[in-house]
Amino acid sequence: REYQGAPTGTDRECRGWRQEAAFRLLNNNLDPEVAEKPEELIVYGGTGRAARSWDAYDAILEELRELAADETLLVQSGKPVGRFRTHERAPRVLIANSNLVGNWDTWEHFHELEAEGLIMYGQMTAGSWAYIGTQGILQGTFETLAELARQEFDGDLEGRIVVTGGLGGMGGAQPLAVTMNRGVCLAAEVDGDRIDRRVETGYCMERIDDLAEAIDRCQAAAAASEPYSVGVRINAADLLEGLLERGFVPDVVTDQTSAHDALEGYYPSGYAVEEADRLREQDPERYVGESLETMERHVDGILSLQDRGAIAFEYGNNIRGQVREERGMESAFDFPGFVPAYIRPQFCRGKGPFRWLALSGDPEDIHRTDEAVLELFPEKDHLRRWIELAQERVQFQGLPSRVCWLGYETDDSDGRYERPDDQRGELTERARFALRINDLVADGEITAPIVVTRDHLDAGSVASPNRETEDMKDGTDAVADWPILNALLNCAAGADIVSVHDGGGVGIGNAVHANNHVVLDGTDLAAEKAAAVFTTDPGSGVIRHADAGYEDALEEAERSGVRIPMREASGE
Amino acid sequence: REYQGAPTGTDRECRGWRQEAAFRLLNNNLDPEVAEKPEELIVYGGTGRAARSWDAYDAILEELRELAADETLLVQSGKPVGRFRTHERAPRVLIANSNLVGNWDTWEHFHELEAEGLIMYGQMTAGSWAYIGTQGILQGTFETLAELARQEFDGDLEGRIVVTGGLGGMGGAQPLAVTMNRGVCLAAEVDGDRIDRRVETGYCMERIDDLAEAIDRCQAAAAASEPYSVGVRINAADLLEGLLERGFVPDVVTDQTSAHDALEGYYPSGYAVEEADRLREQDPERYVGESLETMERHVDGILSLQDRGAIAFEYGNNIRGQVREERGMESAFDFPGFVPAYIRPQFCRGKGPFRWLALSGDPEDIHRTDEAVLELFPEKDHLRRWIELAQERVQFQGLPSRVCWLGYETDDSDGRYERPDDQRGELTERARFALRINDLVADGEITAPIVVTRDHLDAGSVASPNRETEDMKDGTDAVADWPILNALLNCAAGADIVSVHDGGGVGIGNAVHANNHVVLDGTDLAAEKAAAVFTTDPGSGVIRHADAGYEDALEEAERSGVRIPMREASGE
Ligand SMILES: NC(=O)c1ccc[n+]([C@@H]2O[C@H](COP(=O)([O-])OP(=O)(O)OC[C@H]3O[C@@H](n4cnc5c(N)ncnc54)[C@H](O)[C@@H]3O)[C@@H](O)[C@H]2O)c1
Ligand SMILES: NC(=O)c1ccc[n+]([C@@H]2O[C@H](COP(=O)([O-])OP(=O)(O)OC[C@H]3O[C@@H](n4cnc5c(N)ncnc54)[C@H](O)[C@@H]3O)[C@@H](O)[C@H]2O)c1
Repeated sequence: REYQGAPTGTDRECRGWRQEAAFRLLNNNLDPEVAEKPEELIVYGGTGRAARSWDAYDAILEELRELAADETLLVQSGKPVGRFRTHERAPRVLIANSNLVGNWDTWEHFHELEAEGLIMYGQMTAGSWAYIGTQGILQGTFETLAELARQEFDGDLEGRIVVTGGLGGMGGAQPLAVTMNRGVCLAAEVDGDRIDRRVETGYCMERIDDLAEAIDRCQAAAAASEPYSVGVRINAADLLEGLLERGFVPDVVTDQTSAHDALEGYYPSGYAVEEADRLREQDPERYVGESLETMERHVDGILSLQDRGAIAFEYGNNIRGQVREERGMESAFDFPGFVPAYIRPQFCRGKGPFRWLALSGDPEDIHRTDEAVLELFPEKDHLRRWIELAQERVQFQGLPSRVCWLGYETDDSDGRYERPDDQRGELTERARFALRINDLVADGEITAPIVVTRDHLDAGSVASPNRETEDMKDGTDAVADWPILNALLNCAAGADIVSVHDGGGVGIGNAVHANNHVVLDGTDLAAEKAAAVFTTDPGSGVIRHADAGYEDALEEAERSGVRIPMREASGE
Repeated sequence: REYQGAPTGTDRECRGWRQEAAFRLLNNNLDPEVAEKPEELIVYGGTGRAARSWDAYDAILEELRELAADETLLVQSGKPVGRFRTHERAPRVLIANSNLVGNWDTWEHFHELEAEGLIMYGQMTAGSWAYIGTQGILQGTFETLAELARQEFDGDLEGRIVVTGGLGGMGGAQPLAVTMNRGVCLAAEVDGDRIDRRVETGYCMERIDDLAEAIDRCQAAAAASEPYSVGVRINAADLLEGLLERGFVPDVVTDQTSAHDALEGYYPSGYAVEEADRLREQDPERYVGESLETMERHVDGILSLQDRGAIAFEYGNNIRGQVREERGMESAFDFPGFVPAYIRPQFCRGKGPFRWLALSGDPEDIHRTDEAVLELFPEKDHLRRWIELAQERVQFQGLPSRVCWLGYETDDSDGRYERPDDQRGELTERARFALRINDLVADGEITAPIVVTRDHLDAGSVASPNRETEDMKDGTDAVADWPILNALLNCAAGADIVSVHDGGGVGIGNAVHANNHVVLDGTDLAAEKAAAVFTTDPGSGVIRHADAGYEDALEEAERSGVRIPMREASGE
């Protein structure tokens, strides 16, 4: 089927903007600029779909066109299954995707049902109509490094050198995310073409294949406090050993080679790319053996640099698990994963990837929101950096959109935001910004409503023992009460779309997660809903982590007045 | 800890009746008259608890006392974890119990967490504060038989003979449920004391140990269209063979011996109870062997009676599974289970166990609702029968309560219910009754608010492949999107308490289910909420079964105007 993307402009097809928002977002998810395979309804992430079939897609649009201001549409694994009168303050769309009863919660059973057209894989933002293209990964990497800088340095990476490996689809965002944080990035990549591509698209500043020269350039840039990034065509394990030989210890070491897959993702040392590719075909077993051998040296290198003072973390490529499982290297887990180290502290404060889209389709509307967020949080330096660089370097895909991490409440914004009333002063960071956008829509400074949503990966919205809730302090990694409460609470607070999914990035049976959308159409009702949702939603992250005993969350609760009923029993 | 049950009367401890209702229901669940082990917070069903610990219990009550009319309390596996401002039309309490991510959704992991005080088993109505004692099983059995009578006879069991086995804790409700449906019940029970207990408490009319005499009495009663029940001290397998020898074929044959447990639940033929008990201790293996041998004869007897024209069904004791698994008897499943046969047709019409409690504690308030439901549905003969006999025979436990099955809309109630306005005329059976109660509260005919709730076992609220969703027409037994959508929809419609549980009667990992409460305090807001919830909640049962292709559901949707978006794709 030919496919066009979302309608734009200020005329609606639906009976109200809240319905129209769902209508446009579903179509935006399938925009050829946004979706991987729109003709198959696949948005991203394997088979993450926006609707179960084209018939289901058509039917959803028809329901949305007819949906009244006090009705709610039910979507079950990508198929519209019901429409009921609820009330105006309730969600317009409720979505549940891919959820299975525990003992049947397997890929095998899922695929049986899928083959008969009875279920759909919703991924995270695919089946909930909230995907915004590749802006997400860049911003996530930027934010992870920003948190590292807050924890370890003075809030940015100025004068700091980050060493990493892998400049592929996701990993390629690393050099830019480092320089956006004012730091210096030295990245090993065996494939010269990949480095060249990153340099061409502005994600990496230079390619230098001589290691000594690259190190010199990095040190000079760091000494001058200049942002700088360089890709070196070298195996990451060899790079680390080279650094150790030279007695050079970077400030940070991590990795985004595709170590999760020893055969198809990772390159063994001692081969040019084409040679290794030949070996893989001719002797896959030997390939894997050598690949794991290199990985062991790679992890050894990371640990040695850590011993010498570098900050080390794993970036979700499972390189620690590989060498522990396949090479019996128990010390592999002597450096932490990125979620417990850098994401969780933000979750504790209710921070997560807040994103918004301009329903008008007009990039100017997003630029106006960019200004607004900077006006509202002038003290947030890395936010300014992100917004400015995103404006410069991020190409919009489909409906213009933006993402940045905002949380519950920060103490440093007090007094800077002009408060129209007492209540507004008590609002969270996310709520204050949403209300500001709503005002701009009301004033006509933004031409059509803005929809605010987020990733399912957020503070209180996910249970995923292999990723977001890995290694929780109290061992509650797998407790799924939290995302379910988060969804119910979003519904209670008045989000316009609420969804609950099984699976996502880690697969069927490995995660339960929820998300929300709020349509800012400039009305008082939208303001009321936004104030509630953007308090309860990040707030559920604060309480979830407070309950697990995290000090950061208990502190944030104390500072921002989040009620923790059994506070004395939390924390240890 | 000493324990008193719910506060009663018209004075509140909380700031509003919606909060007070939660406060009283939690306490009611722990009333010594209601709960099995209130001192351990256990309400029923193994370890189904109302709160995680006494500290958590105290904290919930404290939160409820303080909870404002626009706030929502979050309860995670029996522990209060947060309290947020939402809005008045939203739920006051959101509950998630025992939910685990699929791959960790096992008793083993649950027990690990439970041992550390990190989770709680919520059963169905224990952790959601909706249990009402043994009235439920009696009414469920009554309703199952009523549905059988509707399907097979003229709507009741007048002149029909039902043969069954087992007069234990649950099975003891059978004779009364049969006579309440105007039928005749012949029940085999090996334990004479059990029969005597049923006779003493009025659940069974007579005990006659001579089989020929008992059959004569049954036939005479049936011929005279008189309700009658008799317990015979005999093994159920022997009873069925005795009937076959005499060429006597009852109208209905079923069984509620505890066949699910061959050692501790079922008695082999050829032994008096004490002899069998001795054998069990001395030679458990032989006991099980003989027990299974008897079960095979027992199932053979059921199948032979079915062949000769009796209606046969299994009553959830797994006797079919036992003989198929342990004795290789493939024909065992030639007679159906009770859910697909008699419960599902009701679920298709949105019917389920609607229950309500009088917060005043005054039995008169329930009697007034009894009158109201009869006034409202004068044509529902079996409803009248149930209510009248329940008034006579059911002793209230804790807060006075009542249960009856009501559904979406029936065509026979039109014109009889006086409609205050046009909209009310379009309402479902459940909604019409709830509004009537609300009017009675407003008028002061009922002294304090009534809370309406239901079992998690309901039309659209459960995914449970071993019980409620066994053998769904389209194979979607394990799809848990439905109970999650049901919970979200209840929240959207404005229920006062909404909960989502894993487990329940079939255990961790085997079911996901949801329930709701609506407080009828006589206000317009309560009326608005009730009208919405009691449409969406049974409606979600209609759409779930319509989606699976059940004709009854598609018909009900057609008749009652339930929107089925892809109707043409439903049914086959
Ligand atoms: N958990 C998360 O949230 C998260 C987020 C982003 C990425 N990741 C992980 O990061 C990894 C990278 O993702 P991607 O999409 O960029 O993968 P990709 O396969 O597109 O890129 C991997 C790159 O690494 C290079 N490479 C492989 N082995 C090397 C070696 N030994 N030395 C130097 N270069 C080598 C390859 O040439 C390739 O360019 C994956 O394992 C992914 O799962 C995880
Ligand atoms: N699926 C459901 O919703 C549902 C509902 C109710 C009961 N059940 C099932 O019904 C069964 C009965 O439940 P209960 O609580 O009454 O159990 P129970 O153990 O209290 O009672 C069983 C009775 O059967 C008698 N009995 C055992 N073997 C016999 C035999 N061969 N002949 C005659 N009498 C015999 C015992 O003496 C006892 O009185 C259980 O298997 C239960 O799981 C299922």
